[in-house]
Amino acid sequence: MEFLVNMEVQLPADLPAQEKERLTRAEADRAAELARCGALVRLWRVPGRRANWGLWRAADATELHDALASLPMFPHLAIQVNALAAHPNDPT
Amino acid sequence: MEFLVNMEVQLPADLPAQEKERLTRAEADRAAELARCGALVRLWRVPGRRANWGLWRAADATELHDALASLPMFPHLAIQVNALAAHPNDPT
Amino acid sequence: MEFLVNMEVQLPADLPAQEKERLTRAEADRAAELARCGALVRLWRVPGRRANWGLWRAADATELHDALASLPMFPHLAIQVNALAAHPNDPT
Amino acid sequence: MEFLVNMEVQLPADLPAQEKERLTRAEADRAAELARCGALVRLWRVPGRRANWGLWRAADATELHDALASLPMFPHLAIQVNALAAHPNDPT
Amino acid sequence: MEFLVNMEVQLPADLPAQEKERLTRAEADRAAELARCGALVRLWRVPGRRANWGLWRAADATELHDALASLPMFPHLAIQVNALAAHPNDPT
Amino acid sequence: MEFLVNMEVQLPADLPAQEKERLTRAEADRAAELARCGALVRLWRVPGRRANWGLWRAADATELHDALASLPMFPHLAIQVNALAAHPNDPT
Amino acid sequence: MEFLVNMEVQLPADLPAQEKERLTRAEADRAAELARCGALVRLWRVPGRRANWGLWRAADATELHDALASLPMFPHLAIQVNALAAHPNDPT
Amino acid sequence: MEFLVNMEVQLPADLPAQEKERLTRAEADRAAELARCGALVRLWRVPGRRANWGLWRAADATELHDALASLPMFPHLAIQVNALAAHPNDPT
Amino acid sequence: MEFLVNMEVQLPADLPAQEKERLTRAEADRAAELARCGALVRLWRVPGRRANWGLWRAADATELHDALASLPMFPHLAIQVNALAAHPNDPT
Amino acid sequence: MEFLVNMEVQLPADLPAQEKERLTRAEADRAAELARCGALVRLWRVPGRRANWGLWRAADATELHDALASLPMFPHLAIQVNALAAHPNDPT
Repeated sequence: MEFLVNMEVQLPADLPAQEKERLTRAEADRAAELARCGALVRLWRVPGRRANWGLWRAADATELHDALASLPMFPHLAIQVNALAAHPNDPT
Repeated sequence: MEFLVNMEVQLPADLPAQEKERLTRAEADRAAELARCGALVRLWRVPGRRANWGLWRAADATELHDALASLPMFPHLAIQVNALAAHPNDPT
Repeated sequence: MEFLVNMEVQLPADLPAQEKERLTRAEADRAAELARCGALVRLWRVPGRRANWGLWRAADATELHDALASLPMFPHLAIQVNALAAHPNDPT
Repeated sequence: MEFLVNMEVQLPADLPAQEKERLTRAEADRAAELARCGALVRLWRVPGRRANWGLWRAADATELHDALASLPMFPHLAIQVNALAAHPNDPT
Repeated sequence: MEFLVNMEVQLPADLPAQEKERLTRAEADRAAELARCGALVRLWRVPGRRANWGLWRAADATELHDALASLPMFPHLAIQVNALAAHPNDPT
Repeated sequence: MEFLVNMEVQLPADLPAQEKERLTRAEADRAAELARCGALVRLWRVPGRRANWGLWRAADATELHDALASLPMFPHLAIQVNALAAHPNDPT
Repeated sequence: MEFLVNMEVQLPADLPAQEKERLTRAEADRAAELARCGALVRLWRVPGRRANWGLWRAADATELHDALASLPMFPHLAIQVNALAAHPNDPT
Repeated sequence: MEFLVNMEVQLPADLPAQEKERLTRAEADRAAELARCGALVRLWRVPGRRANWGLWRAADATELHDALASLPMFPHLAIQVNALAAHPNDPT
Repeated sequence: MEFLVNMEVQLPADLPAQEKERLTRAEADRAAELARCGALVRLWRVPGRRANWGLWRAADATELHDALASLPMFPHLAIQVNALAAHPNDPT
Repeated sequence: MEFLVNMEVQLPADLPAQEKERLTRAEADRAAELARCGALVRLWRVPGRRANWGLWRAADATELHDALASLPMFPHLAIQVNALAAHPNDPT
């Protein structure tokens, strides 16, 4: 099952630059793992914001939650999940 | 450039069933054409609604508008366009 | 997978009373079928409104959409779907 | 009487990890008690969020408030209560 | 149990004046009955609107719904129900 | 003139428990005075929230503001005022 | 007591031009009367809309409602009333 | 003074195609006139919608309203006006 | 040109009482100056809130901004500006 | 491709005045550079707010994001991007 997920990154204003860099690298590493195992399909940046739209794949909402909660930035993310159904006109 | 597009189909309550079927078929045909030329990349149904999320590709917002306006149901669609930027963690 | 579904019934103002009764009976019949096959688990009325909250079960969002779209009142329903994940504190 | 309750957990950013764990355990214990006495009927996680939907049972809104206010995390919860009425098509 | 109820009256634009008057009288009659049996406690007009705030009393949300649905104007009312809990500082 | 007033209590997260208790007692005392002088007519808790709905009486909005601003918790209250007009179907 | 009132004019799309002109003239006449008796103090157009902001004066919300309901266009107006309190920095 | 103006075109569903074309041509003609006299500075389409953003210039809000109200489609436009102030970093 | 301006005062929770008083006095002084020069025409308090509605006069939005930005509390104000156009039914 | 961009500046309340001035100067310098290279076309202040509307030009949303993210105040900006399509009635 596919999900369209919107994330806003809300880092605390007083987060040290070093910790921010560490988090950003860890996030990239975990995203790469989630991509390799097929959970994260596509990821786009919302222009002008520390926010993204992602296409995710999971057996169900529980497995999706576990994938999202495994992101190092999860405590700083405001996430909205949209469950997707198949559309007869989908090109794939 | 990619766009994330949300469409709500708002057919008039008094549209004859035959016209509705004709529109639905014409919409499927045009969607297939737009998929073949690379404008329509993915399409998902919003569960429970006559609505969809689509991933579209176009040179710019003007070309995107022309693609969307070429849909037979365009006069009955409430459309929201989200411009997408590249994200460093995108798997593709 | 479970879903929490909110429905607002929006019947046309000029729907004849007889058609309204027929629709209401047909809706009850279909709801009973969906309950028997395990798709519809619980249903509550929103007090003061022609609206309801329902707990639904389906393999995924596509199967859920098919169940919802099989309701005779579907063309008159404004539906919002919330995908549900398992919670460790759930009593069941 | 049944209530559909939505909770968003809003823990302070600077809450020590140990206190967060203690709160989470205490919350699970109290939820189990409320389930045993029939106040908490079902609990689901909102995927991607520290939030949940719950089905609660209480004599009235005052008794419901007392149950909710007895949760150890209550000072950190943003709660929305929906009163539920019986629906003729409810399977149970 | 008490409920705070907001109603917006949405009469069809083409409702004949005579039918509107009949409805208004019937509504007043039914409101008086509901007041006599203790269901309707107070009623205020929202200034500038065909809308009102009401204080209602009912055993639960199901009984409240039955009272509201018994209003002749019910098909034309957009109703929002707020369940009320006892407050320790309530003067009564 | 009557007013329907909604208050959300927004105490600072770091308010010492003792100061919170003192404020709560002072608020109860002032509410009792405002009830005695006829300004505060009814008060209900919004279930699940540190919030309330109140029925207030004042000569006009200026007198109402003075009553509300006299509450010890006023600096921590987010208040919405609804002016009420007489309704012909009001039971009283 | 003063009130800040926002009105959106929502005339039916099929209102004959002649009836629209008649209504506009009648509205102007009634507005002039309400100005003469001191109920309507100022009136501004919202640029680009058939809408206005008005400063109104009335003994209370009931008297204000009666003034607003006396406008010939009242059945076609969506009105929002803001009760105003005296401000110590008001120039008058 | 400059204004940023958002317009949504809301043509009646039953407007004959011929009348729609006539209106569209008349709108283009009037827009050209307003551009020549300096009232309309720029105009962009909102992709996917019958809507536009425009940069307008007028002595004040009254003159702006007169320009907007002179558009043949004005009765079918939902318009939002944003007054603009000079910014020290403006390139022009 | 006239503007209808809404301000919400959002003082930091930890502002010392003395600084708050100083700001309030300075605000009153500056408001009096702006009234004398004709910029501030009327000011009303929103009952129950540290907020106000004001009627302001300025050559254009830039001059209005300068007047608003000259208020000592400006850094703590959330301001919404509504440009006003002349209405034919305005009493003045 | 052109974009209409809305920015709200949200500086931390405890930012030292000197750092605020430095940021403001750096922002002006970077805005001038972005104007010289054609990325920033126009900039207007939203009256009464630390906010602006800007007309930006970029090859696509990714290039736009890079321009916006290069602003010294970027970490303190809440940005909304509107993609613009060509309109046949545009004067230029």
